[in-house]
Amino acid sequence: MARIGIIGSEGRMGRAIAEAIGAAGEELAGGVDKDGDVAALAAKADVLIDFSSPGALEGNLEAAMAANKPIVVGTTGLEERHHWLIDTAAESIPVLQTGNTSLGVTLLAHLVREVASRLGEDWDIEIVETHHRMKVDAPSGTALLLGEAAAKGRGIALADNSERGRDGITGKREAGTIGFAALRGGTVAGDHTVHFLAENERLALSHMAENRGIFARGAVKAAQWMLERKPGRYTMPEVLGL
Amino acid sequence: MARIGIIGSEGRMGRAIAEAIGAAGEELAGGVDKDGDVAALAAKADVLIDFSSPGALEGNLEAAMAANKPIVVGTTGLEERHHWLIDTAAESIPVLQTGNTSLGVTLLAHLVREVASRLGEDWDIEIVETHHRMKVDAPSGTALLLGEAAAKGRGIALADNSERGRDGITGKREAGTIGFAALRGGTVAGDHTVHFLAENERLALSHMAENRGIFARGAVKAAQWMLERKPGRYTMPEVLGL
Amino acid sequence: MARIGIIGSEGRMGRAIAEAIGAAGEELAGGVDKDGDVAALAAKADVLIDFSSPGALEGNLEAAMAANKPIVVGTTGLEERHHWLIDTAAESIPVLQTGNTSLGVTLLAHLVREVASRLGEDWDIEIVETHHRMKVDAPSGTALLLGEAAAKGRGIALADNSERGRDGITGKREAGTIGFAALRGGTVAGDHTVHFLAENERLALSHMAENRGIFARGAVKAAQWMLERKPGRYTMPEVLGL
Amino acid sequence: MARIGIIGSEGRMGRAIAEAIGAAGEELAGGVDKDGDVAALAAKADVLIDFSSPGALEGNLEAAMAANKPIVVGTTGLEERHHWLIDTAAESIPVLQTGNTSLGVTLLAHLVREVASRLGEDWDIEIVETHHRMKVDAPSGTALLLGEAAAKGRGIALADNSERGRDGITGKREAGTIGFAALRGGTVAGDHTVHFLAENERLALSHMAENRGIFARGAVKAAQWMLERKPGRYTMPEVLGL
Repeated sequence: MARIGIIGSEGRMGRAIAEAIGAAGEELAGGVDKDGDVAALAAKADVLIDFSSPGALEGNLEAAMAANKPIVVGTTGLEERHHWLIDTAAESIPVLQTGNTSLGVTLLAHLVREVASRLGEDWDIEIVETHHRMKVDAPSGTALLLGEAAAKGRGIALADNSERGRDGITGKREAGTIGFAALRGGTVAGDHTVHFLAENERLALSHMAENRGIFARGAVKAAQWMLERKPGRYTMPEVLGL
Repeated sequence: MARIGIIGSEGRMGRAIAEAIGAAGEELAGGVDKDGDVAALAAKADVLIDFSSPGALEGNLEAAMAANKPIVVGTTGLEERHHWLIDTAAESIPVLQTGNTSLGVTLLAHLVREVASRLGEDWDIEIVETHHRMKVDAPSGTALLLGEAAAKGRGIALADNSERGRDGITGKREAGTIGFAALRGGTVAGDHTVHFLAENERLALSHMAENRGIFARGAVKAAQWMLERKPGRYTMPEVLGL
Repeated sequence: MARIGIIGSEGRMGRAIAEAIGAAGEELAGGVDKDGDVAALAAKADVLIDFSSPGALEGNLEAAMAANKPIVVGTTGLEERHHWLIDTAAESIPVLQTGNTSLGVTLLAHLVREVASRLGEDWDIEIVETHHRMKVDAPSGTALLLGEAAAKGRGIALADNSERGRDGITGKREAGTIGFAALRGGTVAGDHTVHFLAENERLALSHMAENRGIFARGAVKAAQWMLERKPGRYTMPEVLGL
Repeated sequence: MARIGIIGSEGRMGRAIAEAIGAAGEELAGGVDKDGDVAALAAKADVLIDFSSPGALEGNLEAAMAANKPIVVGTTGLEERHHWLIDTAAESIPVLQTGNTSLGVTLLAHLVREVASRLGEDWDIEIVETHHRMKVDAPSGTALLLGEAAAKGRGIALADNSERGRDGITGKREAGTIGFAALRGGTVAGDHTVHFLAENERLALSHMAENRGIFARGAVKAAQWMLERKPGRYTMPEVLGL
C-alpha cells in the first residue's frame, strides 16, 4: 500500500483525490495547502500529487527532490519557466506533468491520432463537445487537444487547418480541414466526440465524463505508476503504455 | 388504388416519387416535365404532386382547378405571390404546400414545440445538425425550422434569441437562448438533434434521414390524405393529425 | 417561501431532497426518519415529501391528514393496500404518488405515447437503456414504463407485444412488437432511448440522468405544485400540465 | 489506371463494385457471372474481385493463377476446404480473402482490440448494433467480429465470456464479460458501437454504414493495394497498414 501525499489538498481536486486514494486501496499520507509544510509531507509520503498553483510549483519540486520522491503535477496555467523547472527536477526524480489526468481522454487522443494517420483526406474530421452552461470558452481545451492529435496523425498544422464557428454561407467543406463545434447547457461535465465522415460510412470516437472524479482517479493511477520509475519526465500516455 | 400524377417527374424528387407511389401500393397516373401537358395529366389523375419550379406553379394550379383535383406542392423557392396563388386555388380545391414533406421531421418539430412549452429556461436548448460536405450553408433550413418550433413553444422570437457559431471567449451561456451547431462531412443525408439540458438531466429528440427517399414517401402519404379533403389549404402537420 | 418537511430524511434520497429544497429557494421545515415525530413535522411544514418505506406509509398519511397538509409519496415497493390508503387520504388532502419523480422521464413518457399514437406499425419501436454494473434486473423499470407509454399510444397490450433478450436465429422482426435491450456497465445513472425506425428515417427520443439529484429536484417541484391543490390524488404528468 | 475485373458482376455487390471502380478513377476490365469466361476476364484484367459463390471459387482461383493476376475474394459462406484452396493459390499469386471489405469496420476492429488491451476489467465492454427489420440473426456477424477483437485484446476467449440476450433478474454484471445487444428496425444498413464503461467515464467507438456502397468501395481499395503485392495471402487490416 503506497502512501500518497496531496499538495493543494483543500481545493476541489484535492478533496476528490483524497477520496480516490481510498477507493484505490492506497493510503493518504496527508495533505497540505497554502502555507503547509510540503517538506514534512514529502518525507512521509511515497509519492506526491500536486494540484496547487503555478506559484507554488518551485517549492513543491524542491521538497520532492530533497525527499527523493516522485511527483505528479496536474497544476494548470504553467508557463515556459515552469516547464524548465520540471525538466531540471526530472534529472534527479521522476516527474509526470499533464493538463489532463483522465485515462479515457488520454487514450482517446491516442486513438484519434492513429485513426487520422490511417485515413486519407476523403474522411472529414469533425470534433464536437458539450459542456455545462458556466463554461466561458469554446472549443474546450480537450477538444483542441483532440484536434492536435488528429492534425499530428495527418502530418498537418492544426492552426492552418481548423474550421471553427461554422455559420452562414460557408461554401462546401474544404478537404483536409478539422471542424469544431461546441454545445453548452445544463451541468454536463464534458462529452467529446471525434467524427470521421466518408462516403457512406462514418466512424465516431467518444468520451463522456460523468463527473470530475475521473481526473482524481487518473491522478492516483499515475501516482501508483510513478512509484516504479527512474528519474525522468513522464506523460499520461506512458502510464497507459501508449 | 389512387392514381397519382407527378409534375416535375424527371427531376431527382420526381423519380423518387414515382418509386414511392409503387411502394405505397398506388398507381402512377403519369408524369410531366417542362412543356408537358399538365391538363391531360390532371384529367386522368386522382391527385397531383408538384415538385417542379415556382415559374410553373400558376399553370399547375389552374390545371388542378380545371380538373377539380387536389394537389400537393413541394416546390421550394416560393415567393409571396406564389402563396397568394395557392390561397386562391385553395378556395376551390384542396392544396397542401410544404417545404419539407418528411413525416419524421414534421413530427419532430411538433414535439420540440411541445417540449419547449413545458420546460422553463432552466432547460438550455441546443440544436446540432450534420450534413454532407457539399452543403454550402449553416445551420440547415430544417435546423432553423426546429429552432422556430422551440421559440414558438417558449413564446419568444428566434431572431432575438439565437446563439450561432459559438467560438472563442463566449462568456457563460445566456439563459433563454437557443444554440445552433453545424457539422459537415461525408455524404450524410441529414441528422438533426434538439437537446434540452438541465441540472443533471438531459432530453434529446433526434431525426436521422438515411437518404432522400423519405421526402418522396412523405409526399405520397400527403397525396393519399388529400384524396378525402374538402377544398382548403393544408399543411404537413395536419397529415399527421397534429 | 414554502416550508417542506422530509420523511425518510436520512436515506440517500432524503439527503438529496434536503439539498434540492435549498437550491429551489424553499425552506427545510425539518426531517424525520425511523421513530421520528411525523405529527410534529407535519404541523410545522406546508407540505411533506415521503421517501421512507411502505411500512411507514399509513402513519405518514395520518399525520398529513391530521395537519391538513399535502404530501408527495415517492416510496417504492407499494402494494395494493397502500394504494387504497392513498386513495382514502386523497379524499381529505392532496396526495401525489409516483415511482419516478424525474421531470425529464415524465415528459419523455408523454412524448413516447404521443409519437406512438401518431405513427403506424411501419415504424418499429426499440427501447434501449444503460445502467451501472450493480443493477440486477433488465429491462429497467423506467424502460418498461416507456414501453407501456408506447403500447398505450398504439392501443395494444405491452405484455403481448414485447420482444426482449433478442439473441440467436430470431427470424425477421415481427411488425408491431416493441423491442427492449439493456446495457450494463460502469456507474451510469440511467440513459434511456426510444427509437422509432422506418423506411429510411428514424426518430429517437432520449433521456440521460447524470446522477440521482434529478429525482430530488423533481420531488421538490412536485411539492411546490402541491401547495395550490385541492384534496385529491395527483400524478407527475399533472405537475408538468401534460 | 488499373483494369479491374468483377466475378459475380450481376449480383447486388457486383453492380455496386462496378460503380465504385468508376468512382475510384479505375477502369472496369469487364465482368462475368455464372457460366461466364473467367479465364478471358483474368487475361485482360490487372486484378480480379470475386463476389460470386463458394462453388465457383476453385475455378476463379485457377483462372487468376493461369493469368498470374492478384485476386480479392469477398465471397461469404466459405468452408475449410475453400480456405485450403486459397492458401494454395497464395503460393503463386496475391490473394486477399475477407468477410468484410469495409475500411471503417476493419479499422474499428483494430481500435477495439487495442483499447481492450490497454484497459483493465474495471472497464466493462458492451457491444450494441442496429440493423434493418429483415435481418434474421442476432448479434450481427460484425458485432461478433468486434467481440472477438475485444476478447483478443484482453487475452480471453469470447465464447467463455459473452453475455447475450440480457433479460429478467440477471444479478449484477460479472466482471470481464463482453455484453451484446441487438436492435432491429426500419432499413438500417448497419450501426455498431463498442462501449467501454468505467467508474464515472465512458469511451465509445462507433461505425455507421449509410448503405452497402462502402463494401464495394473497400473491395476496390483492396484491389488497388493488391496490384503491388508479391504472392501471398493478405487480409483487410494489411490494406490499412494495421
